[in-house]
Amino acid sequence: MNSDTDGKYGFDDLGFARPDIGREARQGLPEIVYGPGKTTQEITGLVRHFLARNSGPVLVTRVESEVAARVLAEVPDGTYDRAGRLLCWRRAGLLDFRVAVVSAGTADGPVAAEAVAVASAIGLEVERIADVGVAGIHRLLAVSDVLHRADTVVCVAGMEGALASVVGGLVGCPVIAVPTSVGYGANLAGVTALLAMLSSCAAGMTVVNIDSGFAAAMAAFRIARAAAPSAAAMTREERRPA
Amino acid sequence: MNSDTDGKYGFDDLGFARPDIGREARQGLPEIVYGPGKTTQEITGLVRHFLARNSGPVLVTRVESEVAARVLAEVPDGTYDRAGRLLCWRRAGLLDFRVAVVSAGTADGPVAAEAVAVASAIGLEVERIADVGVAGIHRLLAVSDVLHRADTVVCVAGMEGALASVVGGLVGCPVIAVPTSVGYGANLAGVTALLAMLSSCAAGMTVVNIDSGFAAAMAAFRIARAAAPSAAAMTREERRPA
Amino acid sequence: MNSDTDGKYGFDDLGFARPDIGREARQGLPEIVYGPGKTTQEITGLVRHFLARNSGPVLVTRVESEVAARVLAEVPDGTYDRAGRLLCWRRAGLLDFRVAVVSAGTADGPVAAEAVAVASAIGLEVERIADVGVAGIHRLLAVSDVLHRADTVVCVAGMEGALASVVGGLVGCPVIAVPTSVGYGANLAGVTALLAMLSSCAAGMTVVNIDSGFAAAMAAFRIARAAAPSAAAMTREERRPA
Amino acid sequence: MNSDTDGKYGFDDLGFARPDIGREARQGLPEIVYGPGKTTQEITGLVRHFLARNSGPVLVTRVESEVAARVLAEVPDGTYDRAGRLLCWRRAGLLDFRVAVVSAGTADGPVAAEAVAVASAIGLEVERIADVGVAGIHRLLAVSDVLHRADTVVCVAGMEGALASVVGGLVGCPVIAVPTSVGYGANLAGVTALLAMLSSCAAGMTVVNIDSGFAAAMAAFRIARAAAPSAAAMTREERRPA
Amino acid sequence: MNSDTDGKYGFDDLGFARPDIGREARQGLPEIVYGPGKTTQEITGLVRHFLARNSGPVLVTRVESEVAARVLAEVPDGTYDRAGRLLCWRRAGLLDFRVAVVSAGTADGPVAAEAVAVASAIGLEVERIADVGVAGIHRLLAVSDVLHRADTVVCVAGMEGALASVVGGLVGCPVIAVPTSVGYGANLAGVTALLAMLSSCAAGMTVVNIDSGFAAAMAAFRIARAAAPSAAAMTREERRPA
Amino acid sequence: MNSDTDGKYGFDDLGFARPDIGREARQGLPEIVYGPGKTTQEITGLVRHFLARNSGPVLVTRVESEVAARVLAEVPDGTYDRAGRLLCWRRAGLLDFRVAVVSAGTADGPVAAEAVAVASAIGLEVERIADVGVAGIHRLLAVSDVLHRADTVVCVAGMEGALASVVGGLVGCPVIAVPTSVGYGANLAGVTALLAMLSSCAAGMTVVNIDSGFAAAMAAFRIARAAAPSAAAMTREERRPA
Amino acid sequence: MNSDTDGKYGFDDLGFARPDIGREARQGLPEIVYGPGKTTQEITGLVRHFLARNSGPVLVTRVESEVAARVLAEVPDGTYDRAGRLLCWRRAGLLDFRVAVVSAGTADGPVAAEAVAVASAIGLEVERIADVGVAGIHRLLAVSDVLHRADTVVCVAGMEGALASVVGGLVGCPVIAVPTSVGYGANLAGVTALLAMLSSCAAGMTVVNIDSGFAAAMAAFRIARAAAPSAAAMTREERRPA
Amino acid sequence: MNSDTDGKYGFDDLGFARPDIGREARQGLPEIVYGPGKTTQEITGLVRHFLARNSGPVLVTRVESEVAARVLAEVPDGTYDRAGRLLCWRRAGLLDFRVAVVSAGTADGPVAAEAVAVASAIGLEVERIADVGVAGIHRLLAVSDVLHRADTVVCVAGMEGALASVVGGLVGCPVIAVPTSVGYGANLAGVTALLAMLSSCAAGMTVVNIDSGFAAAMAAFRIARAAAPSAAAMTREERRPA
Repeated sequence: MNSDTDGKYGFDDLGFARPDIGREARQGLPEIVYGPGKTTQEITGLVRHFLARNSGPVLVTRVESEVAARVLAEVPDGTYDRAGRLLCWRRAGLLDFRVAVVSAGTADGPVAAEAVAVASAIGLEVERIADVGVAGIHRLLAVSDVLHRADTVVCVAGMEGALASVVGGLVGCPVIAVPTSVGYGANLAGVTALLAMLSSCAAGMTVVNIDSGFAAAMAAFRIARAAAPSAAAMTREERRPA
Repeated sequence: MNSDTDGKYGFDDLGFARPDIGREARQGLPEIVYGPGKTTQEITGLVRHFLARNSGPVLVTRVESEVAARVLAEVPDGTYDRAGRLLCWRRAGLLDFRVAVVSAGTADGPVAAEAVAVASAIGLEVERIADVGVAGIHRLLAVSDVLHRADTVVCVAGMEGALASVVGGLVGCPVIAVPTSVGYGANLAGVTALLAMLSSCAAGMTVVNIDSGFAAAMAAFRIARAAAPSAAAMTREERRPA
Repeated sequence: MNSDTDGKYGFDDLGFARPDIGREARQGLPEIVYGPGKTTQEITGLVRHFLARNSGPVLVTRVESEVAARVLAEVPDGTYDRAGRLLCWRRAGLLDFRVAVVSAGTADGPVAAEAVAVASAIGLEVERIADVGVAGIHRLLAVSDVLHRADTVVCVAGMEGALASVVGGLVGCPVIAVPTSVGYGANLAGVTALLAMLSSCAAGMTVVNIDSGFAAAMAAFRIARAAAPSAAAMTREERRPA
Repeated sequence: MNSDTDGKYGFDDLGFARPDIGREARQGLPEIVYGPGKTTQEITGLVRHFLARNSGPVLVTRVESEVAARVLAEVPDGTYDRAGRLLCWRRAGLLDFRVAVVSAGTADGPVAAEAVAVASAIGLEVERIADVGVAGIHRLLAVSDVLHRADTVVCVAGMEGALASVVGGLVGCPVIAVPTSVGYGANLAGVTALLAMLSSCAAGMTVVNIDSGFAAAMAAFRIARAAAPSAAAMTREERRPA
Repeated sequence: MNSDTDGKYGFDDLGFARPDIGREARQGLPEIVYGPGKTTQEITGLVRHFLARNSGPVLVTRVESEVAARVLAEVPDGTYDRAGRLLCWRRAGLLDFRVAVVSAGTADGPVAAEAVAVASAIGLEVERIADVGVAGIHRLLAVSDVLHRADTVVCVAGMEGALASVVGGLVGCPVIAVPTSVGYGANLAGVTALLAMLSSCAAGMTVVNIDSGFAAAMAAFRIARAAAPSAAAMTREERRPA
Repeated sequence: MNSDTDGKYGFDDLGFARPDIGREARQGLPEIVYGPGKTTQEITGLVRHFLARNSGPVLVTRVESEVAARVLAEVPDGTYDRAGRLLCWRRAGLLDFRVAVVSAGTADGPVAAEAVAVASAIGLEVERIADVGVAGIHRLLAVSDVLHRADTVVCVAGMEGALASVVGGLVGCPVIAVPTSVGYGANLAGVTALLAMLSSCAAGMTVVNIDSGFAAAMAAFRIARAAAPSAAAMTREERRPA
Repeated sequence: MNSDTDGKYGFDDLGFARPDIGREARQGLPEIVYGPGKTTQEITGLVRHFLARNSGPVLVTRVESEVAARVLAEVPDGTYDRAGRLLCWRRAGLLDFRVAVVSAGTADGPVAAEAVAVASAIGLEVERIADVGVAGIHRLLAVSDVLHRADTVVCVAGMEGALASVVGGLVGCPVIAVPTSVGYGANLAGVTALLAMLSSCAAGMTVVNIDSGFAAAMAAFRIARAAAPSAAAMTREERRPA
Repeated sequence: MNSDTDGKYGFDDLGFARPDIGREARQGLPEIVYGPGKTTQEITGLVRHFLARNSGPVLVTRVESEVAARVLAEVPDGTYDRAGRLLCWRRAGLLDFRVAVVSAGTADGPVAAEAVAVASAIGLEVERIADVGVAGIHRLLAVSDVLHRADTVVCVAGMEGALASVVGGLVGCPVIAVPTSVGYGANLAGVTALLAMLSSCAAGMTVVNIDSGFAAAMAAFRIARAAAPSAAAMTREERRPA
């Protein structure tokens, strides 16, 4: 392992952090910077470091707009997605992998927006379906065609999280459930939706942490890699001959 | 209150228990005996007491079959519902009030059976719909007519309890959700289903305790009383003229 | 289902939301807008949409007074209930269905006020009884006549929530218990009252989410519908001939 | 402290245990033996030791009948209370201190029985009131005279534990609430009743551990000591002149 | 009950509240006003009402100093205890009943101060012992004489709450444990101290809600009443002849 | 939807169950029967029904060996995997999709065995790596080549579940974490491992329910479908040209 | 790392397990076998393997006596400690490091016995102090000399776990707290004692898992190694010159 | 005990606090002042008292910079560590005891900084290793030499806390795990990391409270004392001859 001829295990020591340079070789994407709790200077330093030492997209998540503006002023050529609170440099080329991001209520929007922003930045093709909560199940059924043609569905829901089970029962592709902290009282800040999704009767659904649109997008990316080890180099026609 | 001219506040002292004789006058049904933890002799004593002092149906819940046999041998004219584990004497006349008892999976059956047994014994008209969990939502939609013509729906579901939210969004009548302890791990012995149902996005659904088919039937009975204060004396035609 | 000849399954796609137009046909009331997390513009858009596409009352819940003022300036003919934080247009005609809203302590007032405001706006006849907590049980017993003549009782209580059990034992009509987050320490932000109400010894009581006066009013409305499928067209005398 | 001229801090080392011989001098009663997990030989050894080294009543709690029989065969002159599962030697003389042990349902009986057995054995005058749960509140009100003349009320209740709040509001004497594990589902094996009692709106009520009739009796004994430091030597007439 | 010849069950209806006028007759003290969530006007109204309709001390708890100043300006002759955040009118005469209020750390001070303020206002003789946490157990042992001469000990402790167990083992009088929310992490905002105190190995200790110095003082008052039904009229010499 | 020309929404009503015949068309596999709580007769009936109405593999999970023997005697041509407690008929042809099932300790074996059995039966190529818990991290690193060539890793771990995070950081393919109930005390029957896996610092890992080797295998199957929509018809060389 | 010239990273693959042969070089002791869930054959195989490949003591924990007898019959020269449920071969030579194992109640005995058995087998000098719970704090103070001369104290306590805080305040050496599941109700199967010990006011105490006498002994061993890197070769006089 | 000839049990009574003067004699360090909730005057008073009555380092933890400035202005010769929020007077001489403080992510920095600041102030030699979370395990392995030469490792980690298990498996010295509240959702404010560390598969690791860098440093100090009872007087060469 320590020979590291393929660069999988490189890292640097910046004092305040040890950027994992080898992550891109191991997982297909540079390490992604979590914004909260870092100074503008630290964010800027890490972004520059990954831009220099890796070749793929460089992302910073959960960045408020003022911080984003300061960072963008320091490191040019980046973009900021306000809804998804995401900073991005060197956006990835589009992979042939469709992710449907479905959310239950309008209040789940910010979490879905993070999933959309991250997924798009790392090359996934995203289709967004909002406000199809199960209290009006016909709204979901009306978009079942969109769901059926997705390669993976990210399902974002708070309150009781029931949307995930219904979607999990409709489609055969991977379903990544994202519980949100939307709700009050018995919702327990998202824990109820989390536990409900894990207890789902829809077999083979998987779950990520509460409010983590980021985690869902990354899970979809892993699936895209499994789907086509060299997907970035394939056209849609190459992968789906008919 | 202590004058109690209308018999609402009568009770007796049997030493081991204080049967609430006035409950029938206050709530339309004699006090119902909870079987577990009572000796055959205590059950027999209470049943005889309520048969003598009240005029409506006398029920004992959660009775295993051996105990039931012993009690029935002592107090004639009763019946035993094995699936619902219910002993009953003086079954009520049929009210003009339809309750649909819907359950998600076959493992939820015993809880639904208790709801059906109790509801039937106290005069509600029951329609039973089994195994319509949301992993195959079309099974539920196929019975939506049955749901729409019910006066109240009792929805029994374990695991994540999502069925209740979908039903609550489909129908406009009262929906009483009964979480069950069916499931494992993140289901937390029914607590997850309970909290999920309480957090439901379907407005106006109500919830009873885990595994309590009994509570759901009793809640439906209260609604039937609100629906028709003198329902027992009305025919269906009288109440629904067209 | 997709033929939808009776309008039960209509919806629109406004981009930021999919208003469930069919809900009025299915459940007797237009979809109700949850205020928090929505911009004034989104609230205004949804209200206008429901006013145009449905015919019943249009409500927005949990609206602070400044937002309410801005929305009312945009969409005329609405009213704002400050205590219940409710915006309403096209208030429903009075149904022949009496709901008693009972609360334990003065701190439970805001939750009770939401129940009162919503119930009134959707046509229920409301009777309000405040500050009858069980530490002075004679205060409750003194209003037992009011409770007995109600069609449904909404019982709002924080701390240990014991009021619900006592009320549930006094009356025979449906009792909807609303736990509140009033209290501290062992009250666990309302979870204790919630679990206590679900564990109640009063058979047939049902429970809604913590602090949800809204849910209780909606549950009462469902019961009113079960009570009189065409109640809006009936006078009190028609329904209760004697 | 280590001079211990008044015997408050004596103890012995039996190898398997260090009996606290000074407890009788500090607290008015010899250390009480908790039966579960001890061999008959260990119980016998401890009982003999306390009989020899102390002068007051010697008790062993939570003893099943077979073990009790074996121990009584070894150490004569003891008695066994089967309902309260208590072994006792040298029963205390009757103090002028009345404890009312009130319980909500018949299933709470064993916990109440332990409270009664221990309280009686250590000299308290006990009045037992069973099955006065709040679902039929008039049963409790009917015995309010008994409650009002008690020096302390022990209130035993499972499910939601509401009885304690009502009793705490009725009487002015100390109320010791004992939550029981009676119930299922949302009762969480007594934790709900425990938290509810701690959140009670009845000021000045205190709470002991779930199912601990023993703890309640001991708390009552401490109060009896506070009430009359030399109560054992006083007749009722001496303490309450008129 | 409704005859109420002895005034035990009186109450008034002020619209915003139903003051329990009979509480003084039942429990020896007028109802105590909980300050938070009430307007100055409501507090003033209730204080005046209790001053007019009852004869004992009138208290308002958890009042911040600005509110206190406004209320005192309206209703003269009251006093404000800043540490205990207590407003008081018609302070009670001193009863012959000593309460030791012991606290573990300096951070537990505010809770202890509330216990001291309330206990003093309602006539109990208070001895205050601060900062005797078990990490330096000799500090507690050094005051054991003070503890031994108390009629009741109120033990206030956060973190793990171990002080209560040690005190409970030292003295024979009633010990009322008050868990506080002092601590962080595993302390779970006082829940750990609460559960630990309830699980204590010191037999007969009782527990009140987290941070409730008020509840402890009220519990001590109930014990004082049990100790001497007519204590207010007795001198110390009368009660303790030697 | 109700036209169902492609057979996606078919189901039958067997009275005790409503087998979801359309699931195979929607998700690529017939509905899988959960064994516990069903009689031999019910299992036999469902197996025969799916064998007749669907064409893919028919599985029954969590079947003890005696039940398995009885069912196999009734329905020929099935096989039983004792370690994985799985009954299977019409085993699927091998897909070109490699799943590594990695487990932390020997006690996690039964959960891993269920994952292996189900995954194999539905056509996935499985590689099993046992006992590579992080207390000896070099054991895991020694098999990193096996991990790197997997299409998906199922990571089974109890206690603190740390193995999943390490694996999630090593590989770039999908990682499905399965917490197990192995452990005691602070492990809380698997809840700790579950929450830890959801909180993992390894981005894009997903989680299924405690002890559900079945769910992990089904999640892997969904990924295999996303990877190669017509994988069953492809050779390894067709899909991975180099 | 993979060169492993010092044997720190060796392991073998026995199929059912991967014994971590390098652990002895890294941590001073061979890997210890956890007995539950393993067959006699697996235990025997692992024991033989560690005896052959390592040179230090070989232990199997939590072995019931029948299994122990079977294993000892297969692998000679081992010993079985029934109280501590420990099998041991090649007991370690005595280190100059004294561990006091202190327990609160007799019911905590089995956990303390495991700590004693493991600590002794791996070379620690053990002093056992039983039944010094804080309800009779003088029993603990009487042995303070023993505590003060220990190099490390293992403190075993259930219920509220207060003993650990008192011990932690008395001595200056490392204190390892072991919560036990002894108790009921609010003890929550040891979770309360665990959280209380973690919240302790005694600075620098550390905690291990519930009921894990094993973990405490291993933690003490790590401290002994830190105390004297070559302690096994030192006499007491060499390390403590005077 | 009360003779206290060796000064172990001295304390003073300052009114607002009882400083434990004997702690230095018992545990090798003066009592450390917890800053939050104390006034500048109280902090100043305690610091002066300990400086006068004890001879070792005097510390105040969790002090914000403005308070620190005010205290330093009053009591000269102190220093303030901003990152660790620590005030210190009379810093201890360097002991021959190396503590490695390892942290998982940059967000865990403040907790690690407190551990570093306190450990340094009380004489431990500290080596700081940041940002070696297990998502890039090679970063940790690259510093294994530093870990192996430490006398004790303090491991600071939030989220799932997996770093502690890996470190615990690598080294043989004591490992003190500090869970942090870094994370969101399923992390439950650090409770998940806490429980995970307690459930760790790495034998003999111990755990302190969430976010308590202070507790970890104090635990390391206790180990240093066990390692060399007179370490402060020893040079490195004296203790490790070769």
